[in-house]
Amino acid sequence: MDNTLFTANNIWMMLCIALVFIMHLGFSLLEIGLTRAKNTVNILFKNVIIIIIGLLTYALLGFNLMYPGAEFAGGFAGFSGFGLSLPENGLTAAYYNGQYTYWTEFLFQAMFAATAATIVSGAVAERVRIDSFIIFSTIYVGIIYPIVGMWKWGGGFLEKLGFYDFAGSTIVHSVGGWAAVVAVWLLGARIGKFKKGKISVIAGHNLPLATAGVFLLWFGWFGFNGGSVLSADPGKTSLVLVTTCLAAAAGGFGAFLVSYLKYKQNDLSMLLNGVLGGLVGITAGADVMGVSDAIIIGFIAGVLIVLAVAAIDRLKLDDPVGAISVHLVCGIWGTLAVGIFGKLAGFNQFLNQLIGVGAVAVFCVLTSFIILYALKLSIGLRVSQREELEGLDIHEHGMEAYSDFRMNGH
Amino acid sequence: MDNTLFTANNIWMMLCIALVFIMHLGFSLLEIGLTRAKNTVNILFKNVIIIIIGLLTYALLGFNLMYPGAEFAGGFAGFSGFGLSLPENGLTAAYYNGQYTYWTEFLFQAMFAATAATIVSGAVAERVRIDSFIIFSTIYVGIIYPIVGMWKWGGGFLEKLGFYDFAGSTIVHSVGGWAAVVAVWLLGARIGKFKKGKISVIAGHNLPLATAGVFLLWFGWFGFNGGSVLSADPGKTSLVLVTTCLAAAAGGFGAFLVSYLKYKQNDLSMLLNGVLGGLVGITAGADVMGVSDAIIIGFIAGVLIVLAVAAIDRLKLDDPVGAISVHLVCGIWGTLAVGIFGKLAGFNQFLNQLIGVGAVAVFCVLTSFIILYALKLSIGLRVSQREELEGLDIHEHGMEAYSDFRMNGH
Amino acid sequence: MDNTLFTANNIWMMLCIALVFIMHLGFSLLEIGLTRAKNTVNILFKNVIIIIIGLLTYALLGFNLMYPGAEFAGGFAGFSGFGLSLPENGLTAAYYNGQYTYWTEFLFQAMFAATAATIVSGAVAERVRIDSFIIFSTIYVGIIYPIVGMWKWGGGFLEKLGFYDFAGSTIVHSVGGWAAVVAVWLLGARIGKFKKGKISVIAGHNLPLATAGVFLLWFGWFGFNGGSVLSADPGKTSLVLVTTCLAAAAGGFGAFLVSYLKYKQNDLSMLLNGVLGGLVGITAGADVMGVSDAIIIGFIAGVLIVLAVAAIDRLKLDDPVGAISVHLVCGIWGTLAVGIFGKLAGFNQFLNQLIGVGAVAVFCVLTSFIILYALKLSIGLRVSQREELEGLDIHEHGMEAYSDFRMNGH
Repeated sequence: MDNTLFTANNIWMMLCIALVFIMHLGFSLLEIGLTRAKNTVNILFKNVIIIIIGLLTYALLGFNLMYPGAEFAGGFAGFSGFGLSLPENGLTAAYYNGQYTYWTEFLFQAMFAATAATIVSGAVAERVRIDSFIIFSTIYVGIIYPIVGMWKWGGGFLEKLGFYDFAGSTIVHSVGGWAAVVAVWLLGARIGKFKKGKISVIAGHNLPLATAGVFLLWFGWFGFNGGSVLSADPGKTSLVLVTTCLAAAAGGFGAFLVSYLKYKQNDLSMLLNGVLGGLVGITAGADVMGVSDAIIIGFIAGVLIVLAVAAIDRLKLDDPVGAISVHLVCGIWGTLAVGIFGKLAGFNQFLNQLIGVGAVAVFCVLTSFIILYALKLSIGLRVSQREELEGLDIHEHGMEAYSDFRMNGH
Repeated sequence: MDNTLFTANNIWMMLCIALVFIMHLGFSLLEIGLTRAKNTVNILFKNVIIIIIGLLTYALLGFNLMYPGAEFAGGFAGFSGFGLSLPENGLTAAYYNGQYTYWTEFLFQAMFAATAATIVSGAVAERVRIDSFIIFSTIYVGIIYPIVGMWKWGGGFLEKLGFYDFAGSTIVHSVGGWAAVVAVWLLGARIGKFKKGKISVIAGHNLPLATAGVFLLWFGWFGFNGGSVLSADPGKTSLVLVTTCLAAAAGGFGAFLVSYLKYKQNDLSMLLNGVLGGLVGITAGADVMGVSDAIIIGFIAGVLIVLAVAAIDRLKLDDPVGAISVHLVCGIWGTLAVGIFGKLAGFNQFLNQLIGVGAVAVFCVLTSFIILYALKLSIGLRVSQREELEGLDIHEHGMEAYSDFRMNGH
Repeated sequence: MDNTLFTANNIWMMLCIALVFIMHLGFSLLEIGLTRAKNTVNILFKNVIIIIIGLLTYALLGFNLMYPGAEFAGGFAGFSGFGLSLPENGLTAAYYNGQYTYWTEFLFQAMFAATAATIVSGAVAERVRIDSFIIFSTIYVGIIYPIVGMWKWGGGFLEKLGFYDFAGSTIVHSVGGWAAVVAVWLLGARIGKFKKGKISVIAGHNLPLATAGVFLLWFGWFGFNGGSVLSADPGKTSLVLVTTCLAAAAGGFGAFLVSYLKYKQNDLSMLLNGVLGGLVGITAGADVMGVSDAIIIGFIAGVLIVLAVAAIDRLKLDDPVGAISVHLVCGIWGTLAVGIFGKLAGFNQFLNQLIGVGAVAVFCVLTSFIILYALKLSIGLRVSQREELEGLDIHEHGMEAYSDFRMNGH
């Protein structure tokens, strides 16, 4: 392998690391924007601490759980020891076909790890105890996510089976999404969300920041999907950026159209979630789709967002930011779409995709239920009623997000 | 062409695509920051939908209108068919001298396309109907912008003539700017802007976000100008970044100085628009200027901003964010400056620049007038008086941007 | 030197320039977020003007003060003339071992220059006169910073001595930090900060923007530290990103832990400053540390933040954003840590680090005192009491940051 090509590949991967990192700002802003001012500090705190936990646990054990080495190939789990240790060729072009260094590989994967917990954060916002959330996140990011990741990207049984998930519609987004479902169900709805059988809208308090969050997530997705090529191969990376962007656009367009037809409203939050749905939807197959495949997949993802948000409300699941619709529903859709559209389309592939979705579902629902239920029985999952009504910020953090502004009393 | 150099060039171009993309967040934040809170959701909605429309129409027809192929060289318009189709060498170093792939080229140009409409968005803010704006944008971004782009970058008659516009002071910024003039004139001023012959200041509601917008636009301009080199050539790209940043700084400095001398005030919005003016001003010649040329061009652009904002007010044109001053006035200035400063300076070049400015002016004024006037006669351009007074957010979108904050009643 | 490797190196450096640039948005948002709404426009104005001043003075004289050439090697100061002039091989691979072009080098260093003054800006916020601050910044960024930079990076006496400071824990952060101490001391505390011997908390007004600022600073630090490798060497750059991110995470974790144990509170601003402390702490030795070194250095930096903030309060020094704790205390810590941890650890190195810290301290305290004291005696450093109480925005800038919001009256 040519040393200069190695350098170029590694530059691309490092750029993608930075882009995936900044997605955490995107998630933070989206989540606070779509919830109430009184819980803003709490949400910011959670999102900062998650990236911290994600990086530290991934260095401690996650990386070696996710990539335990060839002896576990085709298996369910493995572990190659605590901490990071640089292999002999870890910094030379001999490492991983000259696509990047050992450090680059670690950091790129570490940046992905925190994403799963961040997805849960949005769904449980405005009522979860901060200590329970931190404990849950530490276990989920540190152990559960890397095990699932190993199944596919670490050479485990899903990889062997032929399951395809380019950048993680299932392996990242659904892993977060399933835990979000379990957590929302165990937590219950926010006070006032479902009153006497009626569904209330609890309005987000800062739509500029929510929109900025979506722009930053799209921006970060250049790295999330672009980096998942794992090299700077010009044809593959540039195709991935095109399918990613067109799916995002089509997702926004689909959600806009359906929400306009259904509700006669130019609904900004649907538009934003439609864009995210398109991004999640294309993530599983961004490198095997053509232009029109990407547009169709994104468009359908956008339509699904509008329908799923309504359906989840009807199920009395209170998901303040639409995380389940975006990450789980569109994550499943995108994963299955690999069997329907693009280069890999075919009945066998579709079955493999179904098996992958199912295996991840069972494992994530089970493990997140065990962790969350244990927390519920011990220290509790939910803040007190008084704390919820007055806001988590003053109770859990002793500060307000907007101390110079006059706020409405809800 | 060396395959590794191809990879490196393509990395640079993909980075620049991401940077140009994030300019749309910059435009969004600037525009909401400089207008009133009651129209915030509307502005965010417009800015998100524009990038969606821009990408989808550019894939559908814009790219093939802008680059119709050699048989239309030197001409006024051409079209090589709907949709994208990968040429045989589109992903190899044989394509475009190994500077990038077909997909990279498409996406870089697509990111530019939406910019023109975004510029208009700022000028018509707080009173335009959302449906009319969407229809106008679709046509302007999908058809008008690519035709003008073809004149220069697609090998059309302006390219043949010797007109120079490196990254689009005219081809992008003035294309938006001329439509902004026409739209502002057809729409009329916001209620309360010109009362009994007096000019009122309608204050922007969120200066932190406006400032963040300008920082992000400057950040994005690294890609807008840096990517317009169309390769990662070290000497050319790094010169372009230096001239771009120094012009931006000098633009801010010029606007600060003049507005301080003129109004005895440290005016933040002038400072911000001065930076943008410097950026627009250097865009036409960023690759043919030296250090002091760039500083002079930027400084003059900053001065022009302060004078133009006042002049446009006196003309009773109500441009809430100063889009006409920034994008049209400085766009023209930057284009003409190519004939005055730097490597290409000379009388013939100056004439060519004038012709380019004039041709674009005539075409854009004419086409935008036709589209906008047709909209005015049919569904109407402007919201009702009640909607304008109460805010577009609750009427067109059914939501408020800042639902937990107490607002002032204007 | 291979031309393609030159291109790749130069791409990395240009990316890092863009990342360091966007740190200025990070600083702006952090600073306004942690202060009061009534001084927001003032802070934004300062932060925009600083980057303008930084770039223009660095082009005019700073670059040639910092890199005066071989004849001044081992010395205290030198100057190779006003303005920029491209050396013969400035754009070819013959320049600086093919790591970047002359323009790239200038712009990367120019982006660093403004940082020092920005650090001061945070410490003096809410009471400094804008004219005095602009004059101070111009001299400090234009002359003092480049002279100190020359001592190490320009081949001066600290470089000759063996002092090590990879990306500027001392050369950038402490340079700003020492001036911050002097300025805070000469200015005095904000009205109401220390009442009858008691320390009041003056709450920041926008914690979402403060948090966004920290995310952007971390993002920018990919370029600040990553670019300080001065090439895209895969092993070195990727190691630097790993140590940087782990130190940031450990810093946040340390500050979280100690502030929780000390105050029984999940304090968001401590968490944020802990992350920044970790980043500043690793900056001196990011390329010579291992994974566990980085985590320990970051963790201790986070602990130091919590202790330093309390200590500085007890000293009656009023530093609204914690700039002294973050940039000076952790800057010193990080510089000394090079003698304790990692590849260079040893008693001699530790002594060299101490000498470097001391030399910079003496020079920066002395020069910033002279400039600031001269300003205090002439035009004055501090705004009037009335202006401070009513806010700098309406008095110095004639505008409010949030004109449509109802604010509390403090």
